[in-house]
Amino acid sequence: MLNIRYEKTTNPKPLPEKDNPLKFGTIFTDHMFAMNYEEGKGWFDPRVVPYQKISLEPSAMVFHYGQEMFEGLKAYKTDDGRTLLFRPNKNIERANRTNRRICIPEIDEEDFLQAIKAVVKMDEAWIPTKPGTSLYIRPFIIATDEFLGVRPSSTYLFMIILSPVGAYYPEGLNPVKIWIEDEYVRAVRGGIGEAKTGGNYVASLAAQMKAHEEGYSQVLWLDGVERKYIEEVGAMNIFFKINGTVVTPKLNGSILPGVTRDSVINLCKHWGLSVEERRISVDELLEAAKDGSLEEVWGTGTAAVISPVGHLRFEDTVLQIKDGGIGEISQKLYDTVTGIQLGRIEDPFGWTVEVQ
Amino acid sequence: MLNIRYEKTTNPKPLPEKDNPLKFGTIFTDHMFAMNYEEGKGWFDPRVVPYQKISLEPSAMVFHYGQEMFEGLKAYKTDDGRTLLFRPNKNIERANRTNRRICIPEIDEEDFLQAIKAVVKMDEAWIPTKPGTSLYIRPFIIATDEFLGVRPSSTYLFMIILSPVGAYYPEGLNPVKIWIEDEYVRAVRGGIGEAKTGGNYVASLAAQMKAHEEGYSQVLWLDGVERKYIEEVGAMNIFFKINGTVVTPKLNGSILPGVTRDSVINLCKHWGLSVEERRISVDELLEAAKDGSLEEVWGTGTAAVISPVGHLRFEDTVLQIKDGGIGEISQKLYDTVTGIQLGRIEDPFGWTVEVQ
Ligand SMILES: Cc1ncc(COP(=O)(O)O)c(C=O)c1O
Ligand SMILES: Cc1ncc(COP(=O)(O)O)c(C=O)c1O
Repeated sequence: MLNIRYEKTTNPKPLPEKDNPLKFGTIFTDHMFAMNYEEGKGWFDPRVVPYQKISLEPSAMVFHYGQEMFEGLKAYKTDDGRTLLFRPNKNIERANRTNRRICIPEIDEEDFLQAIKAVVKMDEAWIPTKPGTSLYIRPFIIATDEFLGVRPSSTYLFMIILSPVGAYYPEGLNPVKIWIEDEYVRAVRGGIGEAKTGGNYVASLAAQMKAHEEGYSQVLWLDGVERKYIEEVGAMNIFFKINGTVVTPKLNGSILPGVTRDSVINLCKHWGLSVEERRISVDELLEAAKDGSLEEVWGTGTAAVISPVGHLRFEDTVLQIKDGGIGEISQKLYDTVTGIQLGRIEDPFGWTVEVQ
Repeated sequence: MLNIRYEKTTNPKPLPEKDNPLKFGTIFTDHMFAMNYEEGKGWFDPRVVPYQKISLEPSAMVFHYGQEMFEGLKAYKTDDGRTLLFRPNKNIERANRTNRRICIPEIDEEDFLQAIKAVVKMDEAWIPTKPGTSLYIRPFIIATDEFLGVRPSSTYLFMIILSPVGAYYPEGLNPVKIWIEDEYVRAVRGGIGEAKTGGNYVASLAAQMKAHEEGYSQVLWLDGVERKYIEEVGAMNIFFKINGTVVTPKLNGSILPGVTRDSVINLCKHWGLSVEERRISVDELLEAAKDGSLEEVWGTGTAAVISPVGHLRFEDTVLQIKDGGIGEISQKLYDTVTGIQLGRIEDPFGWTVEVQ
């Protein structure tokens, strides 16, 4: 149980205007959570304070050696005014998995949840309510030792910032076009691919720029060893419906274990669909597209929730998925997941957690 | 040509005491160089200012997506009081190669060199002169957009900080023990391994901790695809003398093209040694150790210059290299490279650049 210190802003910002469509990740609320770590002392000084700048020495290790981790989850306002988090414990578990992989000290799971609730509660008024909007929650940890040389830091800063957001992709629920990358590699088994750390994202930028130039909004990565098995999209896991079966790459150590991925697998099984977590080669995909058995493709992620995929391109082959529109399962998943998140439909799995 | 603005510190720190042995990367000088970038405007406001904290929004992209790069080179004081840089243009070229790979705007090479010279000149008095010491120069760039979402930043901060340093490894020129890693992977072809960016270093921490626990000071990485070919050490390239021939892994896209590596290759060739840049499997190495043809092993890097390797361990096999002492070529390379760096011996390649 954290003994959180509170300092309220004396200078609140205006809430975003209700009629302006919210972008993703550009506006931040009035407060943030912060907590420090020192070797020997552990995590200390948990606090909810006004949103403010971080001041670090230029030698702070985070600027040089990439020892940083983050998470992403969302809070929703229900029609009857309650505030719900969606499966926060999955993010917290994953955060500690990332921490272990990159040698950052873990945070007690209950303390972590308490921290999220504390800052979300403080800025509850910032949770937007228009369809497709929510409050994005960004916990992150950075290495703060003032030291040049490669080793884990002995001091860290943990923060949680909040951003009222709209759709992650400008397309919204409209199908996106995805580029299957055959030159650059994001991650490889034995590496940091399953951790949520900056190094995986910086590795993805060049391919993303290439895809954008070709008119594609996201990159679908192949494995780094054989460069033939499907991994995941820049910020989403990927699903295919092939011949009636829902197929998604299995967790192999180089892809992020998505919370939305897990939710979608559970929902599909709950609906009686057959679901396979296994290796899928790009050849299998091209074949399935050719013979018509590739019925639907969608990405899953906290930011985009469900993102139908209308086109895939691999080298010179362009695949249009069915009519390029929103597939039936994608739509049903989107409606169900967001329905649960907003407390509008039954939550059979107990996924939502109320902030009181 | 940069129009550099100068602001001198009014509060100079005491120089490190001459008799205290310098550690690596813990003390910083009185000034730093800084310059900003904005899309549409380019790099602007080049300045040499007092060493000071950086103040960033918690949403600054560098804290989340790892878009950061760095370089490392050194300045030396000659016996007649001149200040020399060692092959700065190689670092500057590599910096721009890193920049291209991770979508950071390039910096004009002449401007870059001018910036290094300007700040080194300002803090020239900080260059230590004891044997084995030097002024370590750390240029780095961080992404500063206040934005959550994966894309290249549109604003950056470029800085150069300076640190008077002693030996990088506590061992100094004494042979280090190196652990050949068979579980974790640092980088893979198609990834960011040849770029000098934080993501590669964070990926190395867990293996480094494991090696430390076993009494080894550094990790030698294998390739990410077959996990069988030698790549490089945590912060050094690696060389072997096998049967009279100097062998080093060829630049394959996943290892850093070291400046010291290049210098060592040139020196060895200059001395008439046969040098091969090629793939070397761990099996070949074990064989060579067994039949006695593995004559010498050393690492090369700006921080350590030349670091003789006395022991290698791969899984359950421990290899002692010859008598575990400093090899003949290692010693000659160390003497020659540092001799050139300090302006004490002839510089046949024109590697040193004077700061005037
Ligand atoms: C690389 C990557 N894959 C997948 C996901 C989807 O994970 P989640 O559903 O937990 O948001 C994300 C985003 O969080 C991601 O960054
Ligand atoms: C991963 C890695 N390999 C090799 C080197 C050696 O390169 P250089 O000789 O340019 O210092 C370094 C250090 O710079 C490094 O970080």
